[in-house]
Amino acid sequence: MAKPIEFYFDFSSPYGYLAAQRIDEIAAENRREVDWRPFLLGAVFKTTGGQPLLDIPMKGEYALRDLFRSARLMDIPIAVPKNFPFMSVSACRATYWLSEKDPEAGKALALALYRAAFAEDRNIANPQGVAEVAADLGHDPDEVIAAVQDPRIKDLLKREVDAAIGKGVFGSPYFIIDGEPFWGYDRLEDIGVWLESGGW
Amino acid sequence: MAKPIEFYFDFSSPYGYLAAQRIDEIAAENRREVDWRPFLLGAVFKTTGGQPLLDIPMKGEYALRDLFRSARLMDIPIAVPKNFPFMSVSACRATYWLSEKDPEAGKALALALYRAAFAEDRNIANPQGVAEVAADLGHDPDEVIAAVQDPRIKDLLKREVDAAIGKGVFGSPYFIIDGEPFWGYDRLEDIGVWLESGGW
Repeated sequence: MAKPIEFYFDFSSPYGYLAAQRIDEIAAENRREVDWRPFLLGAVFKTTGGQPLLDIPMKGEYALRDLFRSARLMDIPIAVPKNFPFMSVSACRATYWLSEKDPEAGKALALALYRAAFAEDRNIANPQGVAEVAADLGHDPDEVIAAVQDPRIKDLLKREVDAAIGKGVFGSPYFIIDGEPFWGYDRLEDIGVWLESGGW
Repeated sequence: MAKPIEFYFDFSSPYGYLAAQRIDEIAAENRREVDWRPFLLGAVFKTTGGQPLLDIPMKGEYALRDLFRSARLMDIPIAVPKNFPFMSVSACRATYWLSEKDPEAGKALALALYRAAFAEDRNIANPQGVAEVAADLGHDPDEVIAAVQDPRIKDLLKREVDAAIGKGVFGSPYFIIDGEPFWGYDRLEDIGVWLESGGW
């Protein structure tokens, strides 16, 4: 089996949310797995001088329009949460904690967290909010809250973020396929072609 | 006949170059004209705090790779010119000067200038370089050099750039279709769907 597609995303990234609804399907059509790796875009912005998309003059206004238009075209429900942009560190830690034990459960939690934030306007910016989403999937909320505050998990996330930056991940969503990087939900189609054709 | 598609681009924008090779064809398939409106991205960056794509840490390196990959997929020859990024003000002025007299000739010059810069590594950063490309199309090079230095044409370009910023144009390429904005060469496919379907 070929190597999994590395899928990097920030839980506070709306285009990451859109990509998360489709990437597994595109991968499966090409007999690939997807390795979901949340990271913190804020840490990357310290390196690149980037800033949250919706805060950029002119571009931010356009991006919001493009986001809703893209979601309608892809038939994906989306609402920008009231607390946007929000801190995504708790969501990241909970995902890595659960993925350590069971990668599939980790991915299911990540998807549920994304939908909670961008389709249900739930607050996933703090440990309690994340634990509630995890509880919906049958996980013990107290265990989740403890995990999010566990120094070992904090350190694990820090290393993941550093590793992502080391790989050149500067935006969300970001994909790496056999070393080939793709940035943006709008590369999903190219990714499909790339997987099918083996590159061009 | 429906309103023309407004196509905004900076001559120094490689993704603008890619889009310029395709937009008229996409428009024609949907019985639309395209109004080519070069502008100066540098002037916009003063408003948005943006910076040339290839200069941005991490993102710039990726963008170069994505650019060549996208060009290969679209089967468009491209080479980033040695003097990149270059001043595009002379090319802009010559295009508006010629378009005033003959819009089709203005568009043909714009396309020839883009190809000179990005497919033939010719220098279009100064009046002489622009005049040489215009001469290839049968225009009088001395007339082009005079036009590029004409205060009336300088003022015309200034007003065009201000108007573009007023419409929210913050990047290149940028398209406006019946008031609907699309940014980026990677929206060409969406533009095709939008034109065909009348929007979604």
